[in-house]
Amino acid sequence: MLGARGGWRALRRCASLPRAVRLRVREALGAREPADAVRVQGWVRSVRSQKEVLFLHINDGSSLESLQVVADPSLEKRDLTFGSAVEVQGKLVKSPHRMQNMELQAETIHVVGPCDIWSFPLKMKERHPLEYVRQFPHLRCRNNTLGALLRIRSEATAGIHSFFQDNGYVHIHTPIITSNDCEGAGELFQIETSREAKESAEKTHFFNVPAFLTVSGQLHLEVMAGLEQILKHKFMIISYSEAVEILKQAPQTFTFKPEWGCDLQTEHEKYLVKHCGEVPVFVVNYPYDLKPFYMRDNEDGPQHTVAAVDLLVPGVGELCGGSLREERLPFLESRLQRLGLTDAYQWYLDLRKFGSVPHGGFGMGFERYLQYILGVDNIKDVIPFPRFSHSCLL
Amino acid sequence: MLGARGGWRALRRCASLPRAVRLRVREALGAREPADAVRVQGWVRSVRSQKEVLFLHINDGSSLESLQVVADPSLEKRDLTFGSAVEVQGKLVKSPHRMQNMELQAETIHVVGPCDIWSFPLKMKERHPLEYVRQFPHLRCRNNTLGALLRIRSEATAGIHSFFQDNGYVHIHTPIITSNDCEGAGELFQIETSREAKESAEKTHFFNVPAFLTVSGQLHLEVMAGLEQILKHKFMIISYSEAVEILKQAPQTFTFKPEWGCDLQTEHEKYLVKHCGEVPVFVVNYPYDLKPFYMRDNEDGPQHTVAAVDLLVPGVGELCGGSLREERLPFLESRLQRLGLTDAYQWYLDLRKFGSVPHGGFGMGFERYLQYILGVDNIKDVIPFPRFSHSCLL
Repeated sequence: MLGARGGWRALRRCASLPRAVRLRVREALGAREPADAVRVQGWVRSVRSQKEVLFLHINDGSSLESLQVVADPSLEKRDLTFGSAVEVQGKLVKSPHRMQNMELQAETIHVVGPCDIWSFPLKMKERHPLEYVRQFPHLRCRNNTLGALLRIRSEATAGIHSFFQDNGYVHIHTPIITSNDCEGAGELFQIETSREAKESAEKTHFFNVPAFLTVSGQLHLEVMAGLEQILKHKFMIISYSEAVEILKQAPQTFTFKPEWGCDLQTEHEKYLVKHCGEVPVFVVNYPYDLKPFYMRDNEDGPQHTVAAVDLLVPGVGELCGGSLREERLPFLESRLQRLGLTDAYQWYLDLRKFGSVPHGGFGMGFERYLQYILGVDNIKDVIPFPRFSHSCLL
Repeated sequence: MLGARGGWRALRRCASLPRAVRLRVREALGAREPADAVRVQGWVRSVRSQKEVLFLHINDGSSLESLQVVADPSLEKRDLTFGSAVEVQGKLVKSPHRMQNMELQAETIHVVGPCDIWSFPLKMKERHPLEYVRQFPHLRCRNNTLGALLRIRSEATAGIHSFFQDNGYVHIHTPIITSNDCEGAGELFQIETSREAKESAEKTHFFNVPAFLTVSGQLHLEVMAGLEQILKHKFMIISYSEAVEILKQAPQTFTFKPEWGCDLQTEHEKYLVKHCGEVPVFVVNYPYDLKPFYMRDNEDGPQHTVAAVDLLVPGVGELCGGSLREERLPFLESRLQRLGLTDAYQWYLDLRKFGSVPHGGFGMGFERYLQYILGVDNIKDVIPFPRFSHSCLL
């Protein structure tokens, strides 16, 4: 394990303190017995200096609740401020206050990383709205809510992956870069070397062909239908749909209609429907005639719509929906020919020519899922580093 | 679960057969007792038609070994060829051959997906070299070796993730798109809407600023050092380094020197060193003066090099190495100012201004790791859909 030199230097500084059991804030708060020689590290959430006693609250991210530190006022120093990172050593004792179980009686307080409180955008004891902290993606994980969201995101990722793993699925990393633009030109992000991007005239492409940020790994996963046993081939489509979320909104707007359960049509969903002008939605109420790739027939009479859990990019959607979902090769071939896409999609035709097997799947927008289970209104708050129109912070 | 309509149609066709226990090839091969009414699905690996008997070998990806099917010649049909997908129903019996435990006596053979053997690039009973199958990324998972590699890749991914999960790490999805180009312009891939890419004159950017495909999530992970307890903050840097692998080779070449154990300096490593002109390497023997971000001092006297597990992109490497690894704020500030990067990296300075904590980490090239454990020479064979200079297939 290698570290920035400054880091190790600081670690050594701490190591020179007499040894004490290191506890996380959660462990200290939950301790049943008092203990001498305890070390706790964390960020200062509040400082209250009184004549005879100095109170701190510190938090290390292991608990929503902070640990109260009680110290002699002589331990106060200039850089012991809100937001600074500290290591406190002392005795863990029963707290006389009803509201907390344990508190830490400090013997030493070491400021590991000072914080310039005048310019620090998070302020002591203020409940900052999510809109406010969103402006500071590099600092917002210090906020209780955002920290919790990121932890839950991590747990949800692990849970979903181990579910599929336990059920015999093979995890395929589909490519981020693709040459499949279909007809959707103008709606996908194109990828070029910076040098190419600067040149205005005739271009040579790094990949020989124009390349794009993918919007879906679906066609690539179909390739992998050759990997597993047939007829009930299972594959995994979980897209951490960063690229998808930032795509320009297609001119049409669609309603949000997940196929995995009608009970999802809640207030929250209505919110999403209302806001689907902001970010493209991936689950749709789609005219039957445009037939998205994977779909459920809504059986809704003359208007005849289908629900599909797919991002709809004009072009890709039209192509996939219009014909590629059909297994019938001649139909596929003639349709691709009409669209002038036979060459680009020869590989996809090949899949159907060489021992094709029936296969199906579904997609789940991971961020939408997080929003749903957490009741988070804005998708930007469940993505560690959101990117969207006019913004690519960090 | 939704499926392509053609798929369900085919499923229904199969469902109309009398019910029989479905076994995977692996299960059939390992069965201890004969069984009536068994169904096995798979691809035909060989067809041998004799006067009195028809032999097939079928494989469904569950086993490297194929299952022998014995059938009456009357069951032969034109589309029962090598490469076709079939469902065979019949009796599982002890095989009279010493080389195999069980064989399947076919009662019905249903061709689910025919295969045009004349144009199918994989040929019966031929051992195709990896270089050959690499030309057909959409079909190569039907090859035993490639199929096995993809399965191991999936298992390795799951294993690494659950290791970190079990050890209390938080999994952060770092962004694919970044505005941090540093000085490396011309060496990163720039991202533009297709419309922008077509315009030659003054451009407006979708993100307001030029945006690039990331080469490392490292700086972003440093942000998350604010998420966990301090001083021993742990974070995870595993990059599925597709984007990294395809980056143009920096003008310098570096030797491959993993920091996680000197015993890795094997023949295989020498191979990688020899070939590092093809793809950039991420673990280096680097001049001390350019100091990469995370590093181990090689203590090798006057030449003074360091080992680092980082992709070195000129610019990013120089910037990170030159100063950002230092915790000392004034030094950082003056260096960024000199480079004219103060604005772009204000957020990174902020991290050190507001309660910074010592932190460290390492990166592991996942594909390199797979190559190492599997003894695979070419990195393209451990990536499901490799992208590299002049090639972006599928």
